[in-house]
Amino acid sequence: MANIYDLAYDLEKGLRESEEFQDLKQSYENVMNDPTTKQMFDNFRDTQMNLQQKQMQGEEISEEEVEEAKKVVELVQQQEDISKLMEAEQRLNTMINDVSKIITKPLEELYGEDEQA
Amino acid sequence: MANIYDLAYDLEKGLRESEEFQDLKQSYENVMNDPTTKQMFDNFRDTQMNLQQKQMQGEEISEEEVEEAKKVVELVQQQEDISKLMEAEQRLNTMINDVSKIITKPLEELYGEDEQA
Ligand SMILES: [Ca+2]
Ligand SMILES: [Ca+2]
Repeated sequence: MANIYDLAYDLEKGLRESEEFQDLKQSYENVMNDPTTKQMFDNFRDTQMNLQQKQMQGEEISEEEVEEAKKVVELVQQQEDISKLMEAEQRLNTMINDVSKIITKPLEELYGEDEQA
Repeated sequence: MANIYDLAYDLEKGLRESEEFQDLKQSYENVMNDPTTKQMFDNFRDTQMNLQQKQMQGEEISEEEVEEAKKVVELVQQQEDISKLMEAEQRLNTMINDVSKIITKPLEELYGEDEQA
């Protein structure tokens, strides 16, 4: 029987060498290496995190804050390097989610049995 | 370059054939196939979920509820098949967490870089 950890490291290597990850890495470095772009991206992430945190803690989000967040999103979407990075993140997320679904299938089958009976 | 999905399916097969998963499966079936044990286990899971949900929604949990939950835990821990199942779940969770850490390492390295700089 193959060792789980060996198989996990094979998959990690595959992910690392994948076009999706290499694209993400390049896009991330392009954004990080330009101070103005980095600042814009950091600002965007901060705004997102702030809103998420408020939502999770059940705090109210004002109309003003929603408008402000929309503006920040519009701004970053116009910046080519940032929108490329966001697309690359989306593609990698999809891949990671697919992988996660595949490897947790045995558990889902086991615990799902009961419901179907 | 190896296909990510092939590697993920190899890992899924490895997990499915692992002693940890086979143990979990057997333990789960032992619990599910005895109506009294199943009832006790379902009751335990319901109590846990209820408390978790209340905690997540910021609802207050009364001392009475905490005491009741403790009793349910003590009860299931005395039931051999259930405590075996809980141990098997714990072992599989550890394995899945390890695997998850391994395969998300490239992402952590990429996004962690910025903080270290
Ligand atoms: Ca960097
Ligand atoms: Ca069953």
